[in-house]
Amino acid sequence: MSTASPADIVAEVRTMALAARQASRQLLASATAARNQALLAAADILQGRRDALSEANTLDMQRAQSNALDSALLDRLELTAARVDDMLDGLRQVAALPDPVGAIRDMRTRPSGIRVGKMRVPLGVIGIIYESRPNVTADAASLCLKSGNAVILRGGSEALHSNRVIAAAMADGLAMAGLDRAAVQLIQTRDRAAVGALLGLEGLVDLVIPRGGRSLIERISAEARVPVIKHLDGVCHVFIDEGADPDMAVAIAVNAKTQRYGTCNTMETLLIHQQEAGELLPVLAKAYLDAGVELRGCKRTLAVVPDAQAATEADWGMEYLGPILSVCVVDDIDSAMSHIARYGSGHTEAIVTSDYQRSQRFLREVDSASVMVNASTRFADGFEYGLGAEIGVSTDKLHARGPVGLEGLTSEKYVVLGEGQIRT
Amino acid sequence: MSTASPADIVAEVRTMALAARQASRQLLASATAARNQALLAAADILQGRRDALSEANTLDMQRAQSNALDSALLDRLELTAARVDDMLDGLRQVAALPDPVGAIRDMRTRPSGIRVGKMRVPLGVIGIIYESRPNVTADAASLCLKSGNAVILRGGSEALHSNRVIAAAMADGLAMAGLDRAAVQLIQTRDRAAVGALLGLEGLVDLVIPRGGRSLIERISAEARVPVIKHLDGVCHVFIDEGADPDMAVAIAVNAKTQRYGTCNTMETLLIHQQEAGELLPVLAKAYLDAGVELRGCKRTLAVVPDAQAATEADWGMEYLGPILSVCVVDDIDSAMSHIARYGSGHTEAIVTSDYQRSQRFLREVDSASVMVNASTRFADGFEYGLGAEIGVSTDKLHARGPVGLEGLTSEKYVVLGEGQIRT
Repeated sequence: MSTASPADIVAEVRTMALAARQASRQLLASATAARNQALLAAADILQGRRDALSEANTLDMQRAQSNALDSALLDRLELTAARVDDMLDGLRQVAALPDPVGAIRDMRTRPSGIRVGKMRVPLGVIGIIYESRPNVTADAASLCLKSGNAVILRGGSEALHSNRVIAAAMADGLAMAGLDRAAVQLIQTRDRAAVGALLGLEGLVDLVIPRGGRSLIERISAEARVPVIKHLDGVCHVFIDEGADPDMAVAIAVNAKTQRYGTCNTMETLLIHQQEAGELLPVLAKAYLDAGVELRGCKRTLAVVPDAQAATEADWGMEYLGPILSVCVVDDIDSAMSHIARYGSGHTEAIVTSDYQRSQRFLREVDSASVMVNASTRFADGFEYGLGAEIGVSTDKLHARGPVGLEGLTSEKYVVLGEGQIRT
Repeated sequence: MSTASPADIVAEVRTMALAARQASRQLLASATAARNQALLAAADILQGRRDALSEANTLDMQRAQSNALDSALLDRLELTAARVDDMLDGLRQVAALPDPVGAIRDMRTRPSGIRVGKMRVPLGVIGIIYESRPNVTADAASLCLKSGNAVILRGGSEALHSNRVIAAAMADGLAMAGLDRAAVQLIQTRDRAAVGALLGLEGLVDLVIPRGGRSLIERISAEARVPVIKHLDGVCHVFIDEGADPDMAVAIAVNAKTQRYGTCNTMETLLIHQQEAGELLPVLAKAYLDAGVELRGCKRTLAVVPDAQAATEADWGMEYLGPILSVCVVDDIDSAMSHIARYGSGHTEAIVTSDYQRSQRFLREVDSASVMVNASTRFADGFEYGLGAEIGVSTDKLHARGPVGLEGLTSEKYVVLGEGQIRT
């Protein structure tokens, strides 16, 4: 396959998409029970193939080591027994989630006598492009299938052997439930031309979701002719307002930074009202420094936190994804919101306040996917929000914004129920 | 302006977008009453400037005539007194619509104690690219403003004088309500480089809506780096099922085709169950031929309607936008839905049936923006659906699908209300 010509690869991906389209029509007609059965069967089948999966993963690991891939990638690539357990649990959990498809809302009778409402429906065919973690194969496929979509998976080339075993189990699960195996297909070539082919299939592929680092997502967004849900930076802010409860402010600001460093909902910049900086910043600075967090502050921060380094313009708007925090003292809530509008990435921002009016202003005027009052930014994910599962976090404004669960993999169509009405 | 260099034009459009972005932040904080006041003031101001508007429109008409533009375009360009009345009424009607912004849904308490819901919010900055009809300037700007968005308008170059008068009245209305005039801006150059500039402003422009013919929309979709809501073809189908009430079937099938020919929700292909063709097609054919509709049928159609011409493969999937109808006799509902899936454009399809199970299958399995039972496809528009106003009809699946009203110009963000919760 790796010696196939680009034209062959384009043709092959197109053939897969046509088969996926056909399968998606069958899924439209499928019962919830059949889709759930497919997921449960896939979990059982994969359980029965753990040895084969382990061997495939060993092959991937050996190949990655001989290609001298870095240790972080090797870690993501490895399927430990615990990770396989999690993957199987995930399939069963998705089966247990409520079916989003078919729900009808806002059905109203119009003056003409027709009744008009909106029905939730699958998108059709979804492409998922991801990097080294093979468990994404099962996670992403299960969410697409549950929501009635056919999926074309393009995993990291380093995980190809592992992904093949997992995708085959998903397809076999579909077959056991009487559904079309083409509802879950894995691109089998390592050639990058397959990604370009997938991104060009307007009208056949309804949505592509890239999961990976910023460079992957930017490349895919730039190239795609099909719609893309993307997640760029998470430059999250916490603003400690004048009069905020000091214990709450410290607890949230410390948690938002230090509970995990590498996640997109981790705070990267702390904004603090000038009236609170003198008292709270020294307390916070000690907590951060004890935790090993490097501080980069504005001038007013440096005046009360001598251990901090001076922040440069580049620090505002930086997603550190590590134990570094920028700190800015602001005049008031307007300055805080202006700072966020200028440097934020629209992911998640929180205010710590005791003032009702300012809590409402922050909720309304901050233009981010998640806006919080008196809670840690670390709550911004699909499980904490009750979506049941998460296929990613969107920093787009259209269609799906913030944590994306099953609903983000669906659309709504209008349904009209008449009794013979015609337009006059 | 028309002699400005492309780089100047790009810079100028970018400057407009930056001003729009600033205005959109003010709109986020604005009261519903202020936005309504701006709309009502704009209507009053424009009423007071009817003479100036009429003179500007005469200039546009003279220029169009001297450029030998066709009569259909001249008709769309002309602002008659009645059209100005409609435009002013439209502004007042939009002011009277409920404000979509700020609504919170699905607020739920999570096990952590945080409450999570979704708040409806403006998109930010919207670009509207349209052709000759100057009343779109007021219609589109009013919907954007009502929904809390700043708008950049790019009208047809032939309507520039008229559009300037209308856009200035909108900006003056904003100023009278204490809002930023930059919330409604009109691109003042006729140079097409301005369109390209607008389409390239990722991060500054949140959405572009092209309104016009297919070629305009395809060009814009191909070029845009910003999100686009588009409306391509309306190849709408009516399927007359076995056992349908014959009077209802005839009434709907005739209305869906002949009530208006040039609209996107007009039926272009009639599908009829083989058991009904013998009895109903001759009745229908007479009604269509009396109305001057040319029929193009499949072989089985020709057998019962000798006046029909033979349809070619190109007829299926053709948007005639005129008094032509293709007719296909199908074996059953599965054949009908397969035909729709193959040739339809995903706009609007209707079934006429007396069978409960098949009505539900059609509603569920037909993948179109509007799916109807026992009603004419001509109902598929924003006014008939109760949206109050319509900025277009989307044949996209993501974000906004079908008739697009105020809700389609908004997004939702997550709001989280806590009492100091941190993540453990």
